[in-house]
Amino acid sequence: MYDLPAKFTYGVVRSYMAARARAGAAGAASAIPDDELRYPGHQHSAEWWLFKDLRRRGPRDRPVARVDDPADADLFYVPFFSSLSLVVNPIRPSAAAANASDAAEPAYSDESTQEELLVWLERQPYWRRHQGRDHVFICQDPNALYRVVDRISNAVLLISDFGRLRSEQASLVKDVILPYAHRINSFQGDVGVESRPSLLFFMGNRYRKEGGKVRDTLFQVLENEADVIIKHGAQSRESRRMATRGMHSSKFCLHPAGDTPSACRLFDALVSLCVPVIVSDYIELPFEDVIDYRNISIFVETSKAVQPGFLTSTLRGISSQRILEYQREIKKVKHYFEYEDPNGPVNQIWHQVSSKAPLIKLLINRDKRLVERGTNGTDCSCICSTTKELLRK
Amino acid sequence: MYDLPAKFTYGVVRSYMAARARAGAAGAASAIPDDELRYPGHQHSAEWWLFKDLRRRGPRDRPVARVDDPADADLFYVPFFSSLSLVVNPIRPSAAAANASDAAEPAYSDESTQEELLVWLERQPYWRRHQGRDHVFICQDPNALYRVVDRISNAVLLISDFGRLRSEQASLVKDVILPYAHRINSFQGDVGVESRPSLLFFMGNRYRKEGGKVRDTLFQVLENEADVIIKHGAQSRESRRMATRGMHSSKFCLHPAGDTPSACRLFDALVSLCVPVIVSDYIELPFEDVIDYRNISIFVETSKAVQPGFLTSTLRGISSQRILEYQREIKKVKHYFEYEDPNGPVNQIWHQVSSKAPLIKLLINRDKRLVERGTNGTDCSCICSTTKELLRK
Repeated sequence: MYDLPAKFTYGVVRSYMAARARAGAAGAASAIPDDELRYPGHQHSAEWWLFKDLRRRGPRDRPVARVDDPADADLFYVPFFSSLSLVVNPIRPSAAAANASDAAEPAYSDESTQEELLVWLERQPYWRRHQGRDHVFICQDPNALYRVVDRISNAVLLISDFGRLRSEQASLVKDVILPYAHRINSFQGDVGVESRPSLLFFMGNRYRKEGGKVRDTLFQVLENEADVIIKHGAQSRESRRMATRGMHSSKFCLHPAGDTPSACRLFDALVSLCVPVIVSDYIELPFEDVIDYRNISIFVETSKAVQPGFLTSTLRGISSQRILEYQREIKKVKHYFEYEDPNGPVNQIWHQVSSKAPLIKLLINRDKRLVERGTNGTDCSCICSTTKELLRK
Repeated sequence: MYDLPAKFTYGVVRSYMAARARAGAAGAASAIPDDELRYPGHQHSAEWWLFKDLRRRGPRDRPVARVDDPADADLFYVPFFSSLSLVVNPIRPSAAAANASDAAEPAYSDESTQEELLVWLERQPYWRRHQGRDHVFICQDPNALYRVVDRISNAVLLISDFGRLRSEQASLVKDVILPYAHRINSFQGDVGVESRPSLLFFMGNRYRKEGGKVRDTLFQVLENEADVIIKHGAQSRESRRMATRGMHSSKFCLHPAGDTPSACRLFDALVSLCVPVIVSDYIELPFEDVIDYRNISIFVETSKAVQPGFLTSTLRGISSQRILEYQREIKKVKHYFEYEDPNGPVNQIWHQVSSKAPLIKLLINRDKRLVERGTNGTDCSCICSTTKELLRK
């Protein structure tokens, strides 16, 4: 892991706090020592967990070991808090920030910080050595690092989905899909259907862009069903409380695509033992080599889900016995979605990252001796799925 | 590993022996018990070594463990001797085989055996389960399994190069490049240049198809150089003796492309401590994640190698000191090319195969829940090299 200048890590947290501080208290964040800083609660907090994990020295109880000499490193982690950086500036600036901007003090700029990171990296010999191919970035928010993503696309990206990325920027071969941190509390009870009177629950924004346009149609199809709770709601403490109640008392939880195919709601549902009903044809799922998501969730093609009656009749046809099976399977893998768990997603992410190392090293050695191939100078190695054929079976 | 019917393993060896037996002795091969059968010396003998390794029970001293219950297997090895099958019938049939064919007894057919293998596999539930994606085949001869390769292209292929394979059949992501077994004896002496009077050595077929057409041009450019030994020669015991002498007494050994980019000669050179000069732009190299071939060989683009004087002046410009360095590096990795070595290629091949498992499992789980994507039903994950950009640097 690089010892990045603090502005790319703790500095982002400080800027975030400062932008939200009450007027006159804008300097308070800078008085807190690094070790006492807390990352703002956030569905994209994997960047914090991974950073803290590598900072913590001691026994080698994780699938990767941090080394002090870069010459010993197989891979280089760049711990820029790219997702937090994206939201440093609140939608409505606080009084302090407004005052600061009156005083012509420059506000935080995510784009400039991304540029500065690249300027810093491009001075590092290990970055230049293999054009970044052995580097690892986290950009869990699909919009994080967007300004520089073309300059880091050789690297391993820790991402949520491919919604904002083209196939030459990211792929399942090169990159790792991360789970969002869940925002609502884990359900502490046992498996069961009696305590879950409602069939299907969804709460969230009814109107989204792109893949999320399906949401409005799903509302129309579902909002008059008696045993379905479907509510339009923006983020707030109160709506989170309602979502917790809803997810803990429903058998199934709807997971439609948002602006991109992934959303935090899937992980909220899983830790709630509420069986996810995924209506997002292009979703990618974390740790899919160790988790068979058909055992813990139900996939419904968008084109079917929007047919009136289809979702409810399908779900009503699933026996209590089968729901209990889903819940039992969810319990077995739930720890993979709880960042607090010492054997949770942090270890699993490192495990996934380390499994990329052999192919990365192979390509590094091969690139060095390669003479020009093909007409466009690009030489790709792929693995493919033929979905049509599979659907026919 | 499948317990294949014997005709696909030991039976291929028996057919090979029978086709070469003296008249009247054609039945002798069938009298030898399986355990005493020997694989005919052969550059494609990896199929024998891997099979014998998995047959040998005992301590788990290899990177993969053979399991008895297929339900416990991550991957399924199909140990058909596909490369030997290709050459069962000698170019000139023996008297016995000729007699047999007079008697209308069916001769061995590689193509039929390939078809029979697929018929057998298609009856196996574990083959059908994931359309073969978790299966492993060896086809070290670039022409092995050619008749059925489209039906097994989901699987991991253990191959020598991509010369006969299209990008949708094989790739560095999915498959593993194997070293050929060397045919000439290892050089037992130490590093040194004094005992190696000739600059460059090559012996082999002057006329080859496709990529190998460069050979004739290289002959024209090199055959009048005093310190270069370049000889046209077909395979025979005598020419192997001459090649051994030549490789053990030359500083550099030329490795031009054959009909496909790879050739056994590279590994002959390495075990001879003769620094390979590789003129084969599309070559793939085994274990390139652990071996940086620029440390043990010299790559020359074909377009430069054919320029009169280029190769010899380049090689004459390399100091004795530098040659000794190459030789020392070769000594360090030589065991990766000696199939007899218990820590040699067999272990390394299993290691490479096992490193494919996470991505294979991910795609298996993902394929099962995937809805149709894209217009042509194919969904690929790739990792790419941009060679033009690298060359500019």
